[in-house]
Amino acid sequence: MNGVNRCPAIVLVNPQLGENIGIAARAMGNFDLNDLRLVAPRDGWPNEMARKSASGANGVIDNARLFPSVEDAIGDAQFVVATTARRRDMIKPVMTPASAARELSSRIQGGERVCILFGAERSGLDNDAVALSDAIIMAPVNPAFASLNLGQAVLLVAYEWFSLKSDGTLGRETVDEPARREGLELRHTRTATKSEYLGLFEHLERELDDVGFLLPAEKRPAMVRNLRNLLQRQQLTEQDIRTLRGVVSSLSRAHMRSPDAGSS
Amino acid sequence: MNGVNRCPAIVLVNPQLGENIGIAARAMGNFDLNDLRLVAPRDGWPNEMARKSASGANGVIDNARLFPSVEDAIGDAQFVVATTARRRDMIKPVMTPASAARELSSRIQGGERVCILFGAERSGLDNDAVALSDAIIMAPVNPAFASLNLGQAVLLVAYEWFSLKSDGTLGRETVDEPARREGLELRHTRTATKSEYLGLFEHLERELDDVGFLLPAEKRPAMVRNLRNLLQRQQLTEQDIRTLRGVVSSLSRAHMRSPDAGSS
Repeated sequence: MNGVNRCPAIVLVNPQLGENIGIAARAMGNFDLNDLRLVAPRDGWPNEMARKSASGANGVIDNARLFPSVEDAIGDAQFVVATTARRRDMIKPVMTPASAARELSSRIQGGERVCILFGAERSGLDNDAVALSDAIIMAPVNPAFASLNLGQAVLLVAYEWFSLKSDGTLGRETVDEPARREGLELRHTRTATKSEYLGLFEHLERELDDVGFLLPAEKRPAMVRNLRNLLQRQQLTEQDIRTLRGVVSSLSRAHMRSPDAGSS
Repeated sequence: MNGVNRCPAIVLVNPQLGENIGIAARAMGNFDLNDLRLVAPRDGWPNEMARKSASGANGVIDNARLFPSVEDAIGDAQFVVATTARRRDMIKPVMTPASAARELSSRIQGGERVCILFGAERSGLDNDAVALSDAIIMAPVNPAFASLNLGQAVLLVAYEWFSLKSDGTLGRETVDEPARREGLELRHTRTATKSEYLGLFEHLERELDDVGFLLPAEKRPAMVRNLRNLLQRQQLTEQDIRTLRGVVSSLSRAHMRSPDAGSS
């Protein structure tokens, strides 16, 4: 596809109806987005209903890529946001579609790749997918009638993105939000990609499994999400990831030398 | 209906499909609008498809009023805006959905009644309807793929109205949704104190010294600073600190059992 992607990717996680994929693609076309990623759509891919309901947004449909898992779909991204209709018990920044557009735009201008996750029609994103995200987008809606469907959710997020981009013609205030990078200067390094994060997570979780930290088994998923959330709450650089992996390796190296581990 | 209407009325002029009326009603429900006016819908009124596709926005459907003409529908309004996808040869203010929301809000606060006109699916508003309007709303869309359907157009306008009303407070508002904890105990925790941070740092550094990670000695101060910066870049909670200390202990536990560690 495009060598340098200047737009957020739209990631539909386990979408059910081809029609809704098409409606989402149409909304992307309306607002000049072209990177559609599908994680295990229920009815497979390609899907003729999707093409039909895209109403002419064929470029988006043709460019759509299929992934087996969320992890695969977001591997190249440095920043991932999850759209969700309800609050989760995770400490993550919560943005509106408008503030997300500003944040994503400034990150993309800084050279990052960003992905926006949308869950399945009925159930939304599961907690594991949200745990992989750096922030959450919630649209302001009437709490008494909050059900936005998938296509509408994509539409609002894409609309805000395009509105920000086309700023001049919009009457929308120009926002020169200074990147608030607290503490450390990130200039000479780059933000870690999700696959680097995943490498760290899997490395750490493997070691923790080895020493029996992630027990009892029924609590493992929540413990893993908790750790992943904790480590993602800040923006780690690829150097940070290497440092942390060094720490994990180093701490568990003694383990490797221990009698029950055998070798070396 | 409501004596003083504090919201703009949504006027669908000659809508064709009941389904689209329903989708528009649903979008109104999502964004807390309740005054739907229908001008001579092609398939008559009431319409079961409309109710079905409103997906539960029954109040909007029940309150909808039928009018024979645009003039009748907007008779009580002081200010009328027309939504249109293309420029017309008329000298009228052109607004985005966002700037329209501000304009309409200030007029409504001033006691005016306002109506927003939406045309039929295929043809949009005719020039006579636009001529009755005080201003035009055009959504910023990709000029190469500009077709917004009726439901989407209503959604964007309603969304901007609601966003203005809720003043982008989404990220700050308190939500008292019962916590779905799933292993995460974030609500009752507090930001870590510096002494808790230091406890973690010293614990980690002691273990890393043990396994020879912080070598050579002349680099140790910089490595320690780097790690401390990394861990402090986010706001950890006291629970996070305990989690991380558990991780460190657990990873180095094997070490404690290993033969060469026994001597240290």
